[in-house]
Parts: sequence; C-alpha cells; structure tokens
Amino acid sequence: MNAPVPIDLAEKFGLIHEHWRPRVAAKLNGQDVRLVKVKGVFPWHSHPDAEEMFLVWKGAFRVEFRDAVRELSPGQFIVVPRGVEHRTAADEEAEVLIFEASDVINTGDAPPSEYTAPVGETV
Amino acid sequence: MNAPVPIDLAEKFGLIHEHWRPRVAAKLNGQDVRLVKVKGVFPWHSHPDAEEMFLVWKGAFRVEFRDAVRELSPGQFIVVPRGVEHRTAADEEAEVLIFEASDVINTGDAPPSEYTAPVGETV
Repeated sequence: MNAPVPIDLAEKFGLIHEHWRPRVAAKLNGQDVRLVKVKGVFPWHSHPDAEEMFLVWKGAFRVEFRDAVRELSPGQFIVVPRGVEHRTAADEEAEVLIFEASDVINTGDAPPSEYTAPVGETV
Repeated sequence: MNAPVPIDLAEKFGLIHEHWRPRVAAKLNGQDVRLVKVKGVFPWHSHPDAEEMFLVWKGAFRVEFRDAVRELSPGQFIVVPRGVEHRTAADEEAEVLIFEASDVINTGDAPPSEYTAPVGETV
C-alpha cells in the first residue's frame, strides 16, 4: 500500500488566490476538509441537513447569527448547528479550515449567487 | 436559539493532563473533534470502517505505517485510510486534533490495553 502523505496548511493556503471559494484538501468519512480565504461579508444562509465547522488558521474571522456575533482568532473554531442561519465575515483577509459534509454547497439554502462555489474543487 | 460559542484549542489542551486519552471537543455529522496529548509510542492498529485525520497543533508528531514513517509539524495533517495499519508516536509531548467518526475506539482493532480510552469523554 502507499502510505498517505502529510498535507501542509500553509502550503495549501498559498495556492489559493480567491476569496470565498473553498477548496477540498482532504476527504474522510463523507466529510470534506476545505480551505478557504475570506474577506468581506458572505450572504446569510443555513444548511438544513448538516453541521459546519470553521477553524481559523490565520487572521480574524467572524460568524454572525441572527442573535449574536462570534469573533474567532487563529486556533479557535465553532460548529454551526444544522438549520441555523448564519453568515461569515472578515474585515481583512483570513484563512479558514472548514470541516463539513462533502455534498454541502457553501451558500446552503440561499439563492445561487457570485458567492456560490463549485463543490469538490481540490487544492 | 442560542448561538454556538467558539472553542479555543489552547484553552482546551490546557485542560488535558494525560497522554493518549482523546477528549471530544465538538461533534458534527456523526464525527468527533477530539483533542489528545501524546508522548511515546502507541500500539499498532487499524480502523476497518473509518478514516482518521490527525492535525498537529503543537510539537512534533509521527504517524508510522508498515512501509513508511510520516513526520508532522504544527499546521500539518494526515488522513489515515480505513483498514490501514498505523501507529502514532511523539518523542516529546505533542498536541493533536483528531477528526474521526464518533464511534471509533482509539486502539481500533488492537486488543484492549492501557492505551484504550473511553469513547465520548469530553473536554
């Protein structure tokens, strides 16, 4: 068998040059490890059938809910429960690792828009 | 609804005082985010039905396969395919985030031993 090789987050983020377009860095158990660079404010949406986890790698990242705003720094993560409306935001560019089901569309139940990214694009 | 709150990896690792005893920091989509402090060498084993991901948070961490050794630094991760024999190791204490299915036992198909940790213990 061919032993798996380590994946370096800094190296992979260095290959990403767009905002809000998550790239799949690995897959396991029906889930994706996606990497995304973010800047600005993402549309409100929810994912009716799946939880979504955001782990901040670099920069300041915000997850807004209808009744609260959560500020996250590198080394902090949050799990958004299924069906809960949220939007993500960053005043300056931030790098975020997303752990979520492989069939999840980034804009969830919001209408497709310029923020809607292809599912399954790798890095 | 009650908005979820961020989880701080450094804070959570600060609450863990044992080696090789993963604690669940969050759950999503049938998976656990487990945090573990490691030092020494873990028994050989495999997980027949699930992939397992190790992301190094602090220190130097090693995943050994029968035909290769992978050295990981902070910010690097590896996904061990299901059914593949492996053992983890660290010469000095290291802190590792594990993503894996919530029903997975840390020693997999190896006989229960002093390394076998309870499933579902939280931090």
